[in-house]
Amino acid sequence: MALFRLPSSGPAALMPRGHGLLLRAPQMSDFPQWAQLREFSRGYLTPWEPIWPSDDLTRSGFRRRLRRYTEDIAADRSYPFIIFRESDGMMIGGITLANVRRGIVQAGTIGYWVGQPHADRGYMTTALRVLLPSLFGELNLHRIEAACIPSNGPSIRVLEKCGFTREGLARRYLCINGIWQDHLLFGLLHEDFRG
Amino acid sequence: MALFRLPSSGPAALMPRGHGLLLRAPQMSDFPQWAQLREFSRGYLTPWEPIWPSDDLTRSGFRRRLRRYTEDIAADRSYPFIIFRESDGMMIGGITLANVRRGIVQAGTIGYWVGQPHADRGYMTTALRVLLPSLFGELNLHRIEAACIPSNGPSIRVLEKCGFTREGLARRYLCINGIWQDHLLFGLLHEDFRG
Repeated sequence: MALFRLPSSGPAALMPRGHGLLLRAPQMSDFPQWAQLREFSRGYLTPWEPIWPSDDLTRSGFRRRLRRYTEDIAADRSYPFIIFRESDGMMIGGITLANVRRGIVQAGTIGYWVGQPHADRGYMTTALRVLLPSLFGELNLHRIEAACIPSNGPSIRVLEKCGFTREGLARRYLCINGIWQDHLLFGLLHEDFRG
Repeated sequence: MALFRLPSSGPAALMPRGHGLLLRAPQMSDFPQWAQLREFSRGYLTPWEPIWPSDDLTRSGFRRRLRRYTEDIAADRSYPFIIFRESDGMMIGGITLANVRRGIVQAGTIGYWVGQPHADRGYMTTALRVLLPSLFGELNLHRIEAACIPSNGPSIRVLEKCGFTREGLARRYLCINGIWQDHLLFGLLHEDFRG
């Protein structure tokens, strides 16, 4: 469709940086730090995430994850990012843009996590602010969506600080920690962001 | 994931029927009736649909459409249906289940159109009631979503009659008739439907 341009640059090249943070797609060499940070943060993250597969923190589980990411990026379906602190290469957490829809939609949904040692320091708000221009720019999105469990105050505050608007409440929207849970729906338009 | 079963039967086999209606995937032999009904209904449908490609009503455009449908069904991504009146084979309109998400979501989004000669006779409400058991059953969905332009009263009434709940208002959600338009968000849970 001539109306809607596809991404102009290869998505693998997306490496937004700023305010001391660098975001890029995960790679195999990230495994040790990733597994350590996730294991350390397990109790902290469990209430807000899908149930972890039993082999999630193994090297082979991570390899499978990367394979899926590669397919998803190539299909313009999903873009995963890991967040690093530039000064010392410390891994902070991750953001994934998923469910990318083109055609008459031009939207995608973000989800994110922060490692427990780095929580409550504003890293996620900063990381999103660093990433958003690439999502609206290189990836040409018109709208970015997010969904939050209503009791997840810190996550809601991140979205609000980044300019997202609360647009609805989807009942039993995602199966989180083994239970179908209601989610607040948020949206950010390209024009909100520019404005 | 062991938690979520994949569809148990081949999706191409989905041909729900009842209350005098039959729903099935489009096929090449539908082209003449489809093109005639769409052309006749163009002015009636235009305010509620994406801009029609210039070759939309041609045989080659329809063939391209069917090719995309075949890929989408095979990938468990989207399921298009045409609605026929059983007594005389008359084509009434269509319903598509799109953006099927598995894993922790198990949801899809429906969209529909009815030919102008068949409007305002309750066909779409009946067709949805005939289709819904297959979406929750054979396709194992947990949640069905729909989005409506707020001024589209007839479409909203169809959803409400079928038990959908209004859950939000997504700003500039889809590019309809060439303009980014706000949409009411509706959801129907498997348990609403059984209840």
